[in-house]
Amino acid sequence: MGAVTDCVFCDIVAGRAPASIVHEDEIALAIMTIGPVNPGHVLILPKQHAALLADLDAATAAHLFALATRVAAAIRRSGVRCEGINLFLADGEAAGQEIPHLHLHVFPRFRGDPFVLDADWTAKPARAELDAVAERIRAAYDTGPTARDARHS
Amino acid sequence: MGAVTDCVFCDIVAGRAPASIVHEDEIALAIMTIGPVNPGHVLILPKQHAALLADLDAATAAHLFALATRVAAAIRRSGVRCEGINLFLADGEAAGQEIPHLHLHVFPRFRGDPFVLDADWTAKPARAELDAVAERIRAAYDTGPTARDARHS
Repeated sequence: MGAVTDCVFCDIVAGRAPASIVHEDEIALAIMTIGPVNPGHVLILPKQHAALLADLDAATAAHLFALATRVAAAIRRSGVRCEGINLFLADGEAAGQEIPHLHLHVFPRFRGDPFVLDADWTAKPARAELDAVAERIRAAYDTGPTARDARHS
Repeated sequence: MGAVTDCVFCDIVAGRAPASIVHEDEIALAIMTIGPVNPGHVLILPKQHAALLADLDAATAAHLFALATRVAAAIRRSGVRCEGINLFLADGEAAGQEIPHLHLHVFPRFRGDPFVLDADWTAKPARAELDAVAERIRAAYDTGPTARDARHS
């Protein structure tokens, strides 16, 4: 079991904290969140502690997303009220990440449910502005290994 | 170029509609959305038309998510205002999917930005309830090939 950590997800992985488990394998865990958007709201998390997306190696990231796709299909088949699915990931506190052990939300949606996503949709940037931002991101796009993979190679 | 379709993303893939392109490869396209949550908001989409998550084969899904991870890192490095990143995918109209060609949102976040995500957080289901839902989803979880992969094998 090891020492108690200050990470609730590490405690769940180690069996020191309770969780309702949907799926478990060597790399990841899929559990019910205790704060669901709608009933059937699942969290996918890596067993090895990783705070941010950049701390995951590519294989673990791929595994989490593949698992999310399977869990999404399972929620749709489960009989839980579900007319659609959202995947949501918050990478960093400013993005709404509340537990600093990376996790991917998979939750069912239905018409009239209480989930709300809002922003200032009035901004309609001109094409030249979009092109300029695309160019900045393209210039920063790295086709090489991720920082995490590079550290491990 | 082929015939004009009624799918704006298929038109962008075919070069019949304008887009600000961040990344393009044989399988996917990363473009700036014209309706950003924050400046730097990118959409990742498969080149081959797929309406829903269940219409993607596993390799294409994996590719889209890997691309999203790289684009997230690029946005963080780009100089665009970014203190965190959200990934968001709407699978189905009831989940907020507005364009029926599957796409994954990758957008920067910063403290005080206009993005809001809300739900009825007052529901705190009991452990027995969470266990019961987990059991239903676990029973529906399929470790075999996805429906899409099965159709193609």
